[in-house]
Amino acid sequence: MFSSIDHAMMLRAIELAKRGRFTTAPNPNVGCVIAHGDNIVGEGYHYQAGQPHAEVFALRAAGDKAEGATAYVTLEPCSHYGRTPPCAEALIHAKVSRVVCAMVDPNPQVAGRGIEMLQVAGVEVQTGLLEADAQALNPGFIKRMKTGMPYIQLKLAASLDGRTALSNGQSKWITGPAARADVQRFRAKAGAILSTSATVLADDPSLNIRWDELGEEVQRDYPLSAVRQPCRVVIDSQNRVTPAHRLVHLPGNTILARSEQGNEEWPQSVEQLLVPARNKAESQIDLQALMSALSQRDINHIWVEAGAGLAGALLSAGLVDELIIYQAPKLMGSDSRGLIDLQGLTAMSQVPELDISDVRMVGPDIRITARIKQV
Amino acid sequence: MFSSIDHAMMLRAIELAKRGRFTTAPNPNVGCVIAHGDNIVGEGYHYQAGQPHAEVFALRAAGDKAEGATAYVTLEPCSHYGRTPPCAEALIHAKVSRVVCAMVDPNPQVAGRGIEMLQVAGVEVQTGLLEADAQALNPGFIKRMKTGMPYIQLKLAASLDGRTALSNGQSKWITGPAARADVQRFRAKAGAILSTSATVLADDPSLNIRWDELGEEVQRDYPLSAVRQPCRVVIDSQNRVTPAHRLVHLPGNTILARSEQGNEEWPQSVEQLLVPARNKAESQIDLQALMSALSQRDINHIWVEAGAGLAGALLSAGLVDELIIYQAPKLMGSDSRGLIDLQGLTAMSQVPELDISDVRMVGPDIRITARIKQV
Repeated sequence: MFSSIDHAMMLRAIELAKRGRFTTAPNPNVGCVIAHGDNIVGEGYHYQAGQPHAEVFALRAAGDKAEGATAYVTLEPCSHYGRTPPCAEALIHAKVSRVVCAMVDPNPQVAGRGIEMLQVAGVEVQTGLLEADAQALNPGFIKRMKTGMPYIQLKLAASLDGRTALSNGQSKWITGPAARADVQRFRAKAGAILSTSATVLADDPSLNIRWDELGEEVQRDYPLSAVRQPCRVVIDSQNRVTPAHRLVHLPGNTILARSEQGNEEWPQSVEQLLVPARNKAESQIDLQALMSALSQRDINHIWVEAGAGLAGALLSAGLVDELIIYQAPKLMGSDSRGLIDLQGLTAMSQVPELDISDVRMVGPDIRITARIKQV
Repeated sequence: MFSSIDHAMMLRAIELAKRGRFTTAPNPNVGCVIAHGDNIVGEGYHYQAGQPHAEVFALRAAGDKAEGATAYVTLEPCSHYGRTPPCAEALIHAKVSRVVCAMVDPNPQVAGRGIEMLQVAGVEVQTGLLEADAQALNPGFIKRMKTGMPYIQLKLAASLDGRTALSNGQSKWITGPAARADVQRFRAKAGAILSTSATVLADDPSLNIRWDELGEEVQRDYPLSAVRQPCRVVIDSQNRVTPAHRLVHLPGNTILARSEQGNEEWPQSVEQLLVPARNKAESQIDLQALMSALSQRDINHIWVEAGAGLAGALLSAGLVDELIIYQAPKLMGSDSRGLIDLQGLTAMSQVPELDISDVRMVGPDIRITARIKQV
């Protein structure tokens, strides 16, 4: 059904899509190639919400040469009038004769409409070329469109024996500078960075993107002028974060997830988001409700940096999609602090199982990427 | 000093040496290539203690063509009359004109004698080609020759959060079949497999080589008829192992490391090795003294399979050279059992640091190889 030229063109479109990985949120990453055979006449990718879609840039580059060409798009062209006119219409108008989509629109309520619009106009449409690769471009966008919940990546860092701090709390610099720069790159791809008041009170962290630390390869695709600060979300069920904390004053928005409104004076960039408590006694907020509320705020993809408590609670609630675990080449001993508060497992059949999708060195540390196995 | 032909020939000699990796103990792995330029006229490697050395096989294959040739040997040729006449003499007799050694004999009391014997007879000798690769063939032999202590590899297996069993002790099959086959291959390279009476009482393990589980690639170099059972060493300071335990009756020798002789009736293959107690109250044996005694029994390389207690004690005593850590894609929670009993660390500066030399997938599990950083 697809030729080797089709494969090569779609691979190119996927590569183009990746150039938007730090900037398109909450929109998906999309790439487009327009070609006659193996002769590329136009290329484009979506760079930033509010700017034109990938197809528009590619059509502009192709000009008259779009006529009779094949357009390769990593996602079904849109069919709705939003901030830009529908891309399906633009492709029809430019007289492309064939459109190949890696995947259909993941939103079940709109899926297929762009394809239909093209087909009605007589354009040949094929879908499913390199679909898995195209899906990997937008795990957050796809999950939110399909389920109304964001994609949740949980970052953990520990010694080789699974410990995060000595029994007296000492833990500074478990992992090295390369792992910390790697964390910056994960933050930069996320729609929000989630943490807890416990972490804010203990470390007064910035939870922001520091462009200097992203590394040259990223900086090439992502100039300082384009830096987008993901929303900082702090679970603060006991209203302990104060206007004196550092992250409140940094560029970008902050959401304090609380069960009751506080009386503090906040900068305009701070929102108190009321979330029901799951358990009044413990005043823990309902994590499911929080995630749903964040999804409604167009947050596709959440990067979690917190302690063993939130890690355990998210895992217990079945809310984690992917774990990113950094292991430092150290042994911290058996009386030191554990990685995840997850208690009361009494049989191996209850143990959460994972699929490891990647393991590599990041400087002197190990990075493991694992997905929770769906049971 | 060395040409690209020299490099290629020594690489070939190192490959040949590896074929003996399961069988030469307590002798080192050695390979030899005899060549005129890039024309190989003889090859050989040491296969089993009591059989001829690598040089002898290579000289036999070369016959008259050894005259005027270069011999590449991964280890300095021997100069002593042992079970075989000295290889240095055989090389002289065959009239090779040049000998290249990857490394000199690691035993400081004999190092250089083989080289001297060759030089006195007018043979040109060079050393140090691919020395690190040659050293990697025989970490146990080299360490024992230099220090009188065996090379100690500590095997650990845990979940991704560093746990070995649930709080109720449940732990069966943490790692998968591929990791268990990998363990078989590590056992097969060792001179001894070390465990504890706690492990023997809990699991009644075999601690032996099961040829069926070694995998095809290994079986090709290592036929069933050549299987060598490493010595099983069980730390049994309270004389709890009994003649009813399984490992006592399996092929191969067993050493029970005790502080006092027991009165049980043992098969001939079982030895009670008396080792002073380090601490009478706890009746723990002196691990340093045990290792020294094993070294005196020609054991170069010890593979440790035991629980968190022995792991912590060996690490605290500074006796571990290398850790082999298997991590299963599971999360076992914070009230489950830890990987290493290592307590009382109060500052990050006391934390043992490691260098990770390898990390890879073994089936669905991760295997990490790490060496203790010398401080």
